[in-house]
Amino acid sequence: MRCDTLWTQARLVTCAGDGLGLVERGCVAARGGTIVFAGDAADAPMFDAARTIDCEGRWITPGLIDCHTHLVHGGDRSHEFELRLAGASYEEIARAGGGIVSTMRATRAASEDALVASALPRLDALIAEGVTTVEIKSGYGLDAPSELRMLRAARRLGQERPVRVATTFLGAHALPPEYAGDADGYIAMLCDDLLPQVAAAGLADAVDAFCEGIGFSLAQTERMFRAAAAHGLPVKLHAEQLSNLHGAALAARYGALSADHLEHLDEAGVAAMAQAGTVATLLPGAYYFVRETKLPPVAALRRAGVKIALATDCNPGTAPLTSLLLTMNMGATLFGLTVDECLAGVTRNAARALGLADTIGTLEAGKACDLAIWDIERPAELVYRMGFNPLHARIWSGQ
Amino acid sequence: MRCDTLWTQARLVTCAGDGLGLVERGCVAARGGTIVFAGDAADAPMFDAARTIDCEGRWITPGLIDCHTHLVHGGDRSHEFELRLAGASYEEIARAGGGIVSTMRATRAASEDALVASALPRLDALIAEGVTTVEIKSGYGLDAPSELRMLRAARRLGQERPVRVATTFLGAHALPPEYAGDADGYIAMLCDDLLPQVAAAGLADAVDAFCEGIGFSLAQTERMFRAAAAHGLPVKLHAEQLSNLHGAALAARYGALSADHLEHLDEAGVAAMAQAGTVATLLPGAYYFVRETKLPPVAALRRAGVKIALATDCNPGTAPLTSLLLTMNMGATLFGLTVDECLAGVTRNAARALGLADTIGTLEAGKACDLAIWDIERPAELVYRMGFNPLHARIWSGQ
Ligand SMILES: [Zn+2]
Ligand SMILES: [Zn+2]
Repeated sequence: MRCDTLWTQARLVTCAGDGLGLVERGCVAARGGTIVFAGDAADAPMFDAARTIDCEGRWITPGLIDCHTHLVHGGDRSHEFELRLAGASYEEIARAGGGIVSTMRATRAASEDALVASALPRLDALIAEGVTTVEIKSGYGLDAPSELRMLRAARRLGQERPVRVATTFLGAHALPPEYAGDADGYIAMLCDDLLPQVAAAGLADAVDAFCEGIGFSLAQTERMFRAAAAHGLPVKLHAEQLSNLHGAALAARYGALSADHLEHLDEAGVAAMAQAGTVATLLPGAYYFVRETKLPPVAALRRAGVKIALATDCNPGTAPLTSLLLTMNMGATLFGLTVDECLAGVTRNAARALGLADTIGTLEAGKACDLAIWDIERPAELVYRMGFNPLHARIWSGQ
Repeated sequence: MRCDTLWTQARLVTCAGDGLGLVERGCVAARGGTIVFAGDAADAPMFDAARTIDCEGRWITPGLIDCHTHLVHGGDRSHEFELRLAGASYEEIARAGGGIVSTMRATRAASEDALVASALPRLDALIAEGVTTVEIKSGYGLDAPSELRMLRAARRLGQERPVRVATTFLGAHALPPEYAGDADGYIAMLCDDLLPQVAAAGLADAVDAFCEGIGFSLAQTERMFRAAAAHGLPVKLHAEQLSNLHGAALAARYGALSADHLEHLDEAGVAAMAQAGTVATLLPGAYYFVRETKLPPVAALRRAGVKIALATDCNPGTAPLTSLLLTMNMGATLFGLTVDECLAGVTRNAARALGLADTIGTLEAGKACDLAIWDIERPAELVYRMGFNPLHARIWSGQ
């Protein structure tokens, strides 16, 4: 059987099936950017490979997937962070120009080129750890031109680097000052004016919203979901992060790919997600950074069979985090996830959270050949260490 | 004035004095590996420099100092970590070969070359983030040949890489199985037999112990301190991590360079440390990894004027952490330290914790020219981000 590249002498974390799908004496073959075989070398057909790479016993996992980020944005919030540590009150921080409005201003002021340039070092940090797919949301422009610019910048990142970018329209992230006191009016603008432009330009792969007391109501969120459905776009939701508005159950009713954060999720929400097959995307970096103490209901999610994904939530306000390895450690250390759950959470289940379960997330014939090859002795090391990157090589689409 | 290298167009975090000693339009000049000028360019003498480097407005800090690590050890404990997350009991983990004894066994089984080789990737991770000095303890050999081998390996790391290594003899880290039930006998062996060998070979720059219910008593610790004094070696102490044995006060009585961990430190201990000038080395990575909830008494340390250092505690059991940048973020996020305290904690105060305050830790004439040059807009970014390395260049001893 002909193939472009054959990786031999590898140990595999295929992530196929329900567990990690470990293979001790494995090989992977790719043709045209697609895996044609991944499994036990003893079961492999004879390959006529244009290129053979001896992995010398290293472990191969699927390329990592960061399924929830706000990677594209103007400015940072390090000054606000510094002020808060020094004891400044919320009023003082607001007066000093802090909060999400400061990121909105910096994002509106940034050209598309500037947005791409400032996001690239963050993207490169993820890529350096074996990330091959990254989701990127809009949501700091909060007006039509800036939201469109953010999404174009996100798409461009996928051309600037060998990485798959999934974009999400998050116009309903916060209420911009122009609409103060008129959240319904803002949602109407998003649904009737902006989303049609986004959809027509093919700039979004999904639609998201921030359903929260300080964000948007359940009714406003549902309006966004209906508009998304009208454009044939799947939905996701920032839900139950600070309180329980029952956003996850609403998301499940709309067949959401994922509901994200979920610290305040209740049993009814868990059941709704399980029934709909909605992925629970946990974001331990935000939990850590804001010193949250309410844990997401991991045991209930497990019992109900809800798939759990993990993501960085990379954003300037609550998770200036660009390490998916550290995110796994936080998932284990802070949320008590097992090593298997952490690894599935940044591969198979993260793919599902993006609606890409047929394309990426496991080492199986027919999937894109996105690989991370690691200098480790056992997969648990990827979760155990903090601030250490054992990546040996990264393959994207077979290259 | 002649100099070897002149760094111009730099912004400086000199860490001289009590604060960060910021200089907006700064330059640094070095001759023979030593800083001959660091400060406002307007105050600089005319330099005749063999080499001039334009920093283009980048920030320069002192090279970072990791003043508490167990970087040299055999094996890792990722399997134990995995078992614990999967719900294994302590007995099951012990049966599976877990705990400090497993690290002792792996360390005893490792040759000096193997210890050096396994520590190098960890050291390289620190160096990649601008670390120019690292403290390394023994304490996993727990017999004479293995403890000596660990210290030789630590010294060799300082030859393999451009980094300053300070070694600490930590024979009193745990009781080896050969001395089960006879901790006093083990301490006697350390004081009467092993420490004299260590001192004669010049293998240790300081002596440390683990004073704890599961470690050594106050009386045993004091015996180690007396022996250290007899050999002219300064002392440090793992103190008040899990309970309050008043180890920090004992350490202060012996003029300890530092007392480390300190979650359970009381006011009397704080006062004793303040009077002795003993540095409080906080280890937020261990606090995080073991899910400790008792916070070190930061407010009391501040009130008393105790200097605070931060270190990784890099070790396989409770802090598999090789990022001093992440350590700063944890110091801020988990312990509420300010940005200034975090930066001083890995520079000026870390130098003091090693007894090297005259040599390193600040950008001042007469200090070693150890620099970290950063692609950042403000120093707070070094503390704010997680899993991101903005190091532009690193200079060690002027090179
Ligand atoms: Zn988010
Ligand atoms: Zn230690």
